[in-house]
Amino acid sequence: MRTPEDYLNGLNDGRNVFYKGKRINNIVEHDALKVPALHAAHLYELKLADPTFRYSDPELGEISGFFRVPTDSETLWYRSRIIQESTRSGGGVFNIIQAIGSDAIFALLLIGRELLTEGKEEFLKRVKKYRDEVATKDLALAVAQTDVKGDRSKRPHEQSDPDLYVRVVGESSDGIVVRGAKAHTTQAAVADEIIFIPSRAMSEQDADYSIAFAVPANSNGLKMIVRPIMEIEGLPSKDDAPNASRHVELETLTILDDVFVPWERVFLYRDHREAGALANLFALYHRFTALSYRTAMADMYIGLSKLAARYNGVEDAPHVRDDIVDIVMYREVMYMAARTAAVDCVKVGDMAIPNPIYTNVGKLYSNSHFHDVVRDLIDVAGGSCPPCQVLWISRTQRLGAT
Amino acid sequence: MRTPEDYLNGLNDGRNVFYKGKRINNIVEHDALKVPALHAAHLYELKLADPTFRYSDPELGEISGFFRVPTDSETLWYRSRIIQESTRSGGGVFNIIQAIGSDAIFALLLIGRELLTEGKEEFLKRVKKYRDEVATKDLALAVAQTDVKGDRSKRPHEQSDPDLYVRVVGESSDGIVVRGAKAHTTQAAVADEIIFIPSRAMSEQDADYSIAFAVPANSNGLKMIVRPIMEIEGLPSKDDAPNASRHVELETLTILDDVFVPWERVFLYRDHREAGALANLFALYHRFTALSYRTAMADMYIGLSKLAARYNGVEDAPHVRDDIVDIVMYREVMYMAARTAAVDCVKVGDMAIPNPIYTNVGKLYSNSHFHDVVRDLIDVAGGSCPPCQVLWISRTQRLGAT
Amino acid sequence: MRTPEDYLNGLNDGRNVFYKGKRINNIVEHDALKVPALHAAHLYELKLADPTFRYSDPELGEISGFFRVPTDSETLWYRSRIIQESTRSGGGVFNIIQAIGSDAIFALLLIGRELLTEGKEEFLKRVKKYRDEVATKDLALAVAQTDVKGDRSKRPHEQSDPDLYVRVVGESSDGIVVRGAKAHTTQAAVADEIIFIPSRAMSEQDADYSIAFAVPANSNGLKMIVRPIMEIEGLPSKDDAPNASRHVELETLTILDDVFVPWERVFLYRDHREAGALANLFALYHRFTALSYRTAMADMYIGLSKLAARYNGVEDAPHVRDDIVDIVMYREVMYMAARTAAVDCVKVGDMAIPNPIYTNVGKLYSNSHFHDVVRDLIDVAGGSCPPCQVLWISRTQRLGAT
Amino acid sequence: MRTPEDYLNGLNDGRNVFYKGKRINNIVEHDALKVPALHAAHLYELKLADPTFRYSDPELGEISGFFRVPTDSETLWYRSRIIQESTRSGGGVFNIIQAIGSDAIFALLLIGRELLTEGKEEFLKRVKKYRDEVATKDLALAVAQTDVKGDRSKRPHEQSDPDLYVRVVGESSDGIVVRGAKAHTTQAAVADEIIFIPSRAMSEQDADYSIAFAVPANSNGLKMIVRPIMEIEGLPSKDDAPNASRHVELETLTILDDVFVPWERVFLYRDHREAGALANLFALYHRFTALSYRTAMADMYIGLSKLAARYNGVEDAPHVRDDIVDIVMYREVMYMAARTAAVDCVKVGDMAIPNPIYTNVGKLYSNSHFHDVVRDLIDVAGGSCPPCQVLWISRTQRLGAT
Repeated sequence: MRTPEDYLNGLNDGRNVFYKGKRINNIVEHDALKVPALHAAHLYELKLADPTFRYSDPELGEISGFFRVPTDSETLWYRSRIIQESTRSGGGVFNIIQAIGSDAIFALLLIGRELLTEGKEEFLKRVKKYRDEVATKDLALAVAQTDVKGDRSKRPHEQSDPDLYVRVVGESSDGIVVRGAKAHTTQAAVADEIIFIPSRAMSEQDADYSIAFAVPANSNGLKMIVRPIMEIEGLPSKDDAPNASRHVELETLTILDDVFVPWERVFLYRDHREAGALANLFALYHRFTALSYRTAMADMYIGLSKLAARYNGVEDAPHVRDDIVDIVMYREVMYMAARTAAVDCVKVGDMAIPNPIYTNVGKLYSNSHFHDVVRDLIDVAGGSCPPCQVLWISRTQRLGAT
Repeated sequence: MRTPEDYLNGLNDGRNVFYKGKRINNIVEHDALKVPALHAAHLYELKLADPTFRYSDPELGEISGFFRVPTDSETLWYRSRIIQESTRSGGGVFNIIQAIGSDAIFALLLIGRELLTEGKEEFLKRVKKYRDEVATKDLALAVAQTDVKGDRSKRPHEQSDPDLYVRVVGESSDGIVVRGAKAHTTQAAVADEIIFIPSRAMSEQDADYSIAFAVPANSNGLKMIVRPIMEIEGLPSKDDAPNASRHVELETLTILDDVFVPWERVFLYRDHREAGALANLFALYHRFTALSYRTAMADMYIGLSKLAARYNGVEDAPHVRDDIVDIVMYREVMYMAARTAAVDCVKVGDMAIPNPIYTNVGKLYSNSHFHDVVRDLIDVAGGSCPPCQVLWISRTQRLGAT
Repeated sequence: MRTPEDYLNGLNDGRNVFYKGKRINNIVEHDALKVPALHAAHLYELKLADPTFRYSDPELGEISGFFRVPTDSETLWYRSRIIQESTRSGGGVFNIIQAIGSDAIFALLLIGRELLTEGKEEFLKRVKKYRDEVATKDLALAVAQTDVKGDRSKRPHEQSDPDLYVRVVGESSDGIVVRGAKAHTTQAAVADEIIFIPSRAMSEQDADYSIAFAVPANSNGLKMIVRPIMEIEGLPSKDDAPNASRHVELETLTILDDVFVPWERVFLYRDHREAGALANLFALYHRFTALSYRTAMADMYIGLSKLAARYNGVEDAPHVRDDIVDIVMYREVMYMAARTAAVDCVKVGDMAIPNPIYTNVGKLYSNSHFHDVVRDLIDVAGGSCPPCQVLWISRTQRLGAT
Repeated sequence: MRTPEDYLNGLNDGRNVFYKGKRINNIVEHDALKVPALHAAHLYELKLADPTFRYSDPELGEISGFFRVPTDSETLWYRSRIIQESTRSGGGVFNIIQAIGSDAIFALLLIGRELLTEGKEEFLKRVKKYRDEVATKDLALAVAQTDVKGDRSKRPHEQSDPDLYVRVVGESSDGIVVRGAKAHTTQAAVADEIIFIPSRAMSEQDADYSIAFAVPANSNGLKMIVRPIMEIEGLPSKDDAPNASRHVELETLTILDDVFVPWERVFLYRDHREAGALANLFALYHRFTALSYRTAMADMYIGLSKLAARYNGVEDAPHVRDDIVDIVMYREVMYMAARTAAVDCVKVGDMAIPNPIYTNVGKLYSNSHFHDVVRDLIDVAGGSCPPCQVLWISRTQRLGAT
């Protein structure tokens, strides 16, 4: 299997990455950018060290557990568990590098299956082949979904600027040419491949925007502007925040400046009816993923709050216990939602989809209660909690994308 | 009256300031530290430009409105209004540099008055003289209250390390020698003087810790370690966050390494009975101050959320309107609490105290609802809101101190 | 001044009151219905006993303080205080019988003033004369506002049944004939007069519905169906709930079966532009009234919770103290909103309007936090709290109307 | 199997039931008390009509599904499903009559098993025999747990009145004599048997209070005072509230005036170490039961709110949709907690215990969010919602007991 070193070496491939106004030659040698790269590399370490993260595929042999296609409650729960475990191992910071890509691939497989029933056979074949390829090569993947959008009350084709949503601008016998930009693409600059999918339902006039495809991160015309990583930049030194400064993910504005995509990497093409379904299915799988990593992230919050309480000598103060119970509630609702979504999964053919009700109930709970968890942490820790601030920031960035 | 330049020049006085591990010679010439200094200087600009910020004291002549001692509902409300106005003028960032010092002086005047009834006449005289001096010289003041504490379930004299709370370690005919450290002292490194007061109620055995006094910021043995200012360090450039990077306050760990204090600057001395009352009275005045600046801070949040909604084309979305109403609620509860605390003030002699019930109700509402406001802002702005992050951080730091 | 006996005797006037399917001849002799009548009579007792409730009108002589027209912050706050005091005297149950009628009269005076500027002089004259009459006769008043509505997504004239909103169906030189029904009219069956006002903004086609007027409670064609009073019916005996079974208000479905109204009692006539303004102004005055009585109602909740905590021996339990603090918060936010609405009142000519922002902020807080207060009470009292249930019910009924 | 008629006829057995101050001869002939009896009888109807509610016990033959001892995730979930189904069939009102008794029996089986390891063999034998008897006879059971308590800060033996907790006052070779009273015993007056268990952990000095036993409802010395059933008394007629007035449960103050209990019905005897464990285990099983019936109860709330929204023509109003989503959240968290508690159950020997974490997380969510559901219902329905009030009341009563 691929080693962490293989993965890190592969990032020096001429990709166009910008940080604080400058093009970065080799991100693995950059003080700030190497940190998210090392975080991603940690997943490859885990896989080598622990067989739990590996799966013996009957056709492909031993692959990463993240690329195992869920077929029932058991395999969905297996997926949840490896997401939880890798998050715990990363100090509570999610490791997205194979989880989000597989979320997108599962959604694309289902859409491909749907297109099959409409007589469009090529799409499912392409997605399956792509899945086999990334699984075999053990690739690192990012998913770019959130268009820059402009006026949110208008559809893509109604925007004053036609490039506010990613679209096709050219077509030939070899493939297509795509243009536009996606915001908040997590770990794009340290991925091997980037999968692009629509961010919303589309109308017939939005056909040009109803596309999905994948490209290598060093494609011609692909530019990635990395948002300043406050977790690293704003802190004095690694000594002060060893965990926060080691496990961090970056985020990019991902620009497609007329990038060519060969047909075999085109997974949805000018099909407005399936665009919304694809966006939703991906969101569903990815929310299931989020429930899983938040369970583990919250484990760290529980530990952090108990540790802070002990340091401050306030472990037995009733309001502190209330705060900690509140964090435990958050953790366990995340867990219950993931568990029930797996147990009561929906079967489509030979695939399993996390139950949409429980997945979304968990997501809604997270959205409305996460800020209470932050308040609890600050309450318990008192004024001096830089870790809280860092957690907060990393979370804020992520809230936008999920 | 003192000009911004006078104030800024006064900071180059040999004070011991450390930032990111290095001693800073002249903070006004330091890239990061000059920003909080310029923020404080903005208060001097306001005073020169707008007569609202000036008060004609019958004895002292024209002084800063912040040093006007509140005597009734009207003068308390005047104080609230200038705090609101200066906060608005600072882009929603509170300008603490004369507000917190006067909060402490008002509390000390009341304690001095109390000590008078116990036959200890010198303390009230000293506080009055000190107030006249800082008002006449128009000084910038910080207040150091939060001891570093250690085990919070134990009293100061019970701690394993006797220096976890600030205490007196020597006494002579000239004055006293003090030792210890205070955490989270806002703007201490850019103040002329620092006032030290107890952070809690004391028992008889805590007599050494039951002290209050003031020292110049460049006193021998006084060391200030400035916390990394993430708002400045973590952001790419002033172009990206012009407001956030211009109006920022710093915070120090303020160390008293056997500092000498002459008797005329000692305002409470080994009097455990008044220590808790002083801590509470200061907190009361300062919470009234906080209600006032949060009213103005929330004005900015309202504007920010409406602007973000307009940019995103979601002004009429019901959930966005709900979010904005929620922020408006926060703003108006802060205002109502300040207003009622002033209208229903408590009179003690010729001084007026903000009504403790409404001051504390406002404080409690702020503590339990502020995180909802942050959630609302993120909700409205979507994923891309660095300003929110910055607001958040500046706020987080402040939550510890108030 | 009118005595409680005068008032009670006046109720035996042939009015059409129905309860549990039967017409009630004299409500003062009915086991259940006499209770709300005695509750209203309590206001006349208070007035005789305590000069605070009386006002020396320069023109009319000594009248009820409820009919004093607010002209500034002071008189608005006087109004709030007598509403608070009468509520406290009624065991925490609001005494609506002159408060709501005066709320409506103040709103009608402002609309009359507005109509004056449009050249319609008669309306202001009629309202003034009506106000003088009810003040001089010291009458008990109900206000019927909430139409039965039907489909809430449609305007009055769009409803399939034209009688779902109260409307004019006939007009002569003597007056008009009105038809329709109003829901949830508090204390209508024990009032001398009932004032009818619109419940919403109207369009030009809703002219027939854009009317306001007053009629005696024993008018021909006026029928009042009293909702079963669970507080009385559902409880075993007065011994078990002495307070709840003594201070109760009733609620009617108030039917206008072609009732004649002389012109001098018509205060708005087919004027759709002013209908919404009138509905809003009344709501504003009445919400100010509600903030005032809820302040006093919450006083009882605080006392109830402290008493229950003492009985249960849990006064010092932290979660019980949290519950009580929560109720205190509710009380004080109600108070602060009323206080600030009075202090920052809006002047229109010689009248004062409660500040709309603080009035509505208080209302919104009440709506979103009242159920927390109920939960707190149950939490503190444990399982055996019939008083809570009764409070709850009386409140539930009222929530619909305000 | 036992028919509804068998059950109802059995209630005319001379039991001592008091209602509104009078002894009731045959409760099935009493206007108010027959309603809860008919509600309980409904469970016997269901069992006859639907095989889901029956279980073929290998030893006892066909018994009620409620008496099936859970042995794994599957059988726990079966139990949850029949509780849900019977609640739905009862218009959203839980049918406690065999559910709570079996909860107690399961807890007693586990305690019996524990005592076995201490060499006390008789208790497990007695419980097993009792379980076989009630299952074979298909009995209706109540569980009396909540002592009347007095000062909650004191232990049973510390109370000024020794009878504030149920205790043993006599012992002979035939059995024991018990004295005291239990509050809030749901459906006791319509049960065949009543099981008594401790309500808290006990100390060594509380040995007399550390007992568990069962007695027939018509035992000498057993008196049951039924709380006034407001749902029936306070409503005008069955026409107005057909569901609420048909499916109602009663609650008693259950007095043991020196009641004799033969040894074979004594399940815990003067064993303070197991008293708290028994109280907790029963609570755990009963909270799992509560999660199950609240899932079904909330189904009715969802339907009720959607129906009310449709009647009012406000189905598409965003705030109404938010209210309904909030109720859906409540329902699904109840479901997820029950589901996860079953899936992740704890095995003890051949029995399965619902996972304590998820059971209690669900309980805590219910306690803190139920009042929001009530507010949502009122919000959607507007002012005219007597059903809400009734739901509220029935719920309030139950909140005390669970």
